[in-house]
Amino acid sequence: MPPPHVNTTNSYSKRKEINHRDFREREGERERRLYEDRSMEGGVEESSQTRIMVGVNESTIKGYPHASISSKGAFEWTLSKIVRTNTSAFTLLFLHVQVPDQDGFDDMDSIYASPDDFKKLNRRNKIRGLHLLEYFVNRCHEIGVPCEAWIKKGDPKEVICHEVNRVQPDMLVVGSRGLGPFQRVFVGTVSEFCAKHAECPVITIKRKVDEAPQDPIDD
Amino acid sequence: MPPPHVNTTNSYSKRKEINHRDFREREGERERRLYEDRSMEGGVEESSQTRIMVGVNESTIKGYPHASISSKGAFEWTLSKIVRTNTSAFTLLFLHVQVPDQDGFDDMDSIYASPDDFKKLNRRNKIRGLHLLEYFVNRCHEIGVPCEAWIKKGDPKEVICHEVNRVQPDMLVVGSRGLGPFQRVFVGTVSEFCAKHAECPVITIKRKVDEAPQDPIDD
Repeated sequence: MPPPHVNTTNSYSKRKEINHRDFREREGERERRLYEDRSMEGGVEESSQTRIMVGVNESTIKGYPHASISSKGAFEWTLSKIVRTNTSAFTLLFLHVQVPDQDGFDDMDSIYASPDDFKKLNRRNKIRGLHLLEYFVNRCHEIGVPCEAWIKKGDPKEVICHEVNRVQPDMLVVGSRGLGPFQRVFVGTVSEFCAKHAECPVITIKRKVDEAPQDPIDD
Repeated sequence: MPPPHVNTTNSYSKRKEINHRDFREREGERERRLYEDRSMEGGVEESSQTRIMVGVNESTIKGYPHASISSKGAFEWTLSKIVRTNTSAFTLLFLHVQVPDQDGFDDMDSIYASPDDFKKLNRRNKIRGLHLLEYFVNRCHEIGVPCEAWIKKGDPKEVICHEVNRVQPDMLVVGSRGLGPFQRVFVGTVSEFCAKHAECPVITIKRKVDEAPQDPIDD
């Protein structure tokens, strides 16, 4: 049975409903909670809300399920400076893009003997991503901000711009490590690319200087 | 007598108080209204508000006191997508930068015979700028959003970044004509410079395609 809410963008809605039902059947409690959080929107007419997409990723130091410093910063900035106490007027859309190669690294010692092993790996990665999203969704739930969260695979900067096109949020918030021009040459910046190419207003939140780890490329 | 409100940034506050008293004495009713709008802030603790600076300029087609299409767009976007009904939680800070040379053009036929003539010209330009700001301040007043507005002279992109540094808003909103790369080479874009150099989060609001005038360089 389809969920009770109605989404303005039909194809988007349909795809997500299927995704969410899929998750729920396979993963149980965690997905159910993510799903229920989604359905909170039902109480507010969606067309009247400001939909803010927030790109989030995992910590390069602690790994999953920990969020990167700049993701957390961008999220908290959005809550304190834009959403404030007007929690029902906004919907936060959390997009986590998993980089396929990078996610395989932790499994270097595993043995892959059958196609099923790869399925398990994919499933494990997805669960890790869901753990990351859970942090943001729980935080929104606590303070009563409607939200949605989903995972995509690919090159973060390209996938984010593609998802902006598809979902058409009112704005995109991305965190940035605030690297200097020299460091940027080596690591590339997702935020810079999105600010230039995403088809919606983009706001880049630089990591606070006192929150930067020893190596500023970490996050 | 100084106005009854207290501003958190002392030097900023002091300078503006002087400006406003100055205006009031010289210009009368219009400045008094701008001034009173400023003092609306007194009711809300300023440190708890989100301070959004909006760069505004005059229409290239209609001239003063008409605001440019992209300024209006950036302003209306801020109201509808961020401020929404939470009007007392935000303070809008309108900065209008006058380009000295450009403003002199209209006075090509005037005769300057004494230093006083130049003073009059300066005063006339200032009044034109105030008329522009009045539009934004009146609009805020109507819907109950606290605001401040002031004029500076110089190169818009540099002055805006300098004022961000001085006033330290939570974010800067700038409109953009949304020109293509070829057109940008000739006109330069204030928004691009600010997004790169301003020391606060910057959000660029592109002019809607259907609002663009016949020549997209106009605004």
